[in-house]
Amino acid sequence: MVRVHNFNAGPAVLPAAVLRQVQDELVILPGQGMSVMEMSHRSAAFDAIMDKAESGLRNLLGLSNDYAVLFLQGGASLQFSMVPMNLLRDIPQGEPGADFLVTGSWGTKAYKEAGREGSARIAATTKKDGFNRVPLATELDLEPRARYVHYVSNETIEGVQWRGEPDTAGVPLVCDASSDILSRPLDIAKYGLIFAGAQKNIGPSGVTVVIIRKDWIHERPALPTMLSFDTHYKDRSLYNTPNTFGIYMIGLVCDWIHGLGGLAGMERRAEAKAALLYDVIDGSDFYTGHAQFESRSRMNVTWRLPTEELESRFEKESRALGFIGLKGHRSVGGLRASIYNALEPESVLELAYFMKDFEARA
Amino acid sequence: MVRVHNFNAGPAVLPAAVLRQVQDELVILPGQGMSVMEMSHRSAAFDAIMDKAESGLRNLLGLSNDYAVLFLQGGASLQFSMVPMNLLRDIPQGEPGADFLVTGSWGTKAYKEAGREGSARIAATTKKDGFNRVPLATELDLEPRARYVHYVSNETIEGVQWRGEPDTAGVPLVCDASSDILSRPLDIAKYGLIFAGAQKNIGPSGVTVVIIRKDWIHERPALPTMLSFDTHYKDRSLYNTPNTFGIYMIGLVCDWIHGLGGLAGMERRAEAKAALLYDVIDGSDFYTGHAQFESRSRMNVTWRLPTEELESRFEKESRALGFIGLKGHRSVGGLRASIYNALEPESVLELAYFMKDFEARA
Repeated sequence: MVRVHNFNAGPAVLPAAVLRQVQDELVILPGQGMSVMEMSHRSAAFDAIMDKAESGLRNLLGLSNDYAVLFLQGGASLQFSMVPMNLLRDIPQGEPGADFLVTGSWGTKAYKEAGREGSARIAATTKKDGFNRVPLATELDLEPRARYVHYVSNETIEGVQWRGEPDTAGVPLVCDASSDILSRPLDIAKYGLIFAGAQKNIGPSGVTVVIIRKDWIHERPALPTMLSFDTHYKDRSLYNTPNTFGIYMIGLVCDWIHGLGGLAGMERRAEAKAALLYDVIDGSDFYTGHAQFESRSRMNVTWRLPTEELESRFEKESRALGFIGLKGHRSVGGLRASIYNALEPESVLELAYFMKDFEARA
Repeated sequence: MVRVHNFNAGPAVLPAAVLRQVQDELVILPGQGMSVMEMSHRSAAFDAIMDKAESGLRNLLGLSNDYAVLFLQGGASLQFSMVPMNLLRDIPQGEPGADFLVTGSWGTKAYKEAGREGSARIAATTKKDGFNRVPLATELDLEPRARYVHYVSNETIEGVQWRGEPDTAGVPLVCDASSDILSRPLDIAKYGLIFAGAQKNIGPSGVTVVIIRKDWIHERPALPTMLSFDTHYKDRSLYNTPNTFGIYMIGLVCDWIHGLGGLAGMERRAEAKAALLYDVIDGSDFYTGHAQFESRSRMNVTWRLPTEELESRFEKESRALGFIGLKGHRSVGGLRASIYNALEPESVLELAYFMKDFEARA
């Protein structure tokens, strides 16, 4: 059986070369006499695996020693609570807490959870436009004394992505980068904290990467031990057993990205792949993109067809040809092509060809 | 390179047959055209994988429909907080909460975390004996109105295991079964909740199995969404992306156990393996077991040598011969052989032989 064209939104396609290496060494990791899954997380050999994953991320993102890299569990969804628990609870009642820029489903969820833990307010939202764009600079109602500004760099469901960091006049950013991390360089100095579930651009599901300014890490004795960043920072993500297999794979994925030119290489690749699909959409009256031009995502391309019946036919026919995962999220409808780092341009070319062919036949 | 004799305490040895199957289908899962790690957690195909893992556990443990099986993240350590958050917070001040039977390091940690979330008291502890045994029935100071009694069925570090369930006169049990789950049949009706990190007897690290009586699951709107059992029960562990690869492996491990006679088969296997080592210890003045006879573990055999220097030599020489993971935990010292389900009896036979040989040479 051949590998399909995998447009899944996450868990998503992984680099074939990485999967083949994992396969080769799955039963016996070279030099270890056992699978990586059977190694003690406290062994020197696993330490080296952890180092490789951490330094891989550090090198790609250009992280200075001012930032810690943590490998946690629970997904971005647990960070929706853990971040405000750690960063907002010590703010006195009535004082500003976190400002949220809401551009889609994940930002909406994060805002709701934060409100349970501390002071959170919406500084901008494009809900009234159906989350089809990011707000203009003039639409941001920012509190200059906010502890941080939370934003979602790429909204997976709506296919809406910020081109660069929002301008917060110096207030540090907290970013849910789950669906576009490692797809382009970031201006790291603007960030206090970045979190991302691994299962789109970093590795398999079950690991959450948290990048946090070290001076934002404080002892939080009132919190459950497992929910304090301090715990995981002090024990280098080994307070308890982490997802060792996931961390091992992150190191391999970082190597693969490095070999393709790092984040600048990934950005060129993402732009080229996205352009293949947006060109078809822009050159057609048949397809309509969900996101507005300036805000459209290079990771998740979302579009509609003239009728739901045609959308359903498109999805069915494409699936029969080996295009998997193109059905749009139920909240937006239509089609969605998730074209993360690991998706080969060839798959996108084939999809663009199918789109033109389908239009011609419809 | 051959596979070593893997006595790691966790992550630990996995069944070689399971690892070979995972290897075979790592790049392309049969019928799917992609790796299991690349599949959507919301696909019908992954649903079948989830079903297989859940029904595998249900069949082995004999779980009725009164119990839910959840696949979470964060390890047993997160359950130390999540369990009392969900089960103790609604108990009025001054009313009894949870009784703890503390027989080692993990029970100690769980008790500390529970105290942050609600009313927790120690109903028995063997700390003064260096956690070398479980308490006698006469030593239990139980509160009949307690919501539950927490105990650790097997203390990994000390090598102390309960032979059967403690008698709580009807108060339901909450059990941290991380290091002996699936090694023997359980009297399920006595349990309200069982949790276990997967990385000893169930699968790779990064998945936590929670088995909970359905009538113990309630909406907990004040809790972070991710920390409410209700969230994960309602969404069948798919509220957010779970560790899909880990869940897939749990299904395969359950198949493997089923093929070896289920939990009764595992119990016979565990008793036979443990006897090989305890016989050497009992027949020698050179080796001294840490745990008392009635409480010694069939999963983690802990013992001392006459001097620390001899212990260090034992560990070094055994390692050179391919016995991995025998160094005892720093808090107990000495040696520890973790002999979980997947460890082949041959490895234990070889170790018993080495122990006799080492003693003869020392």
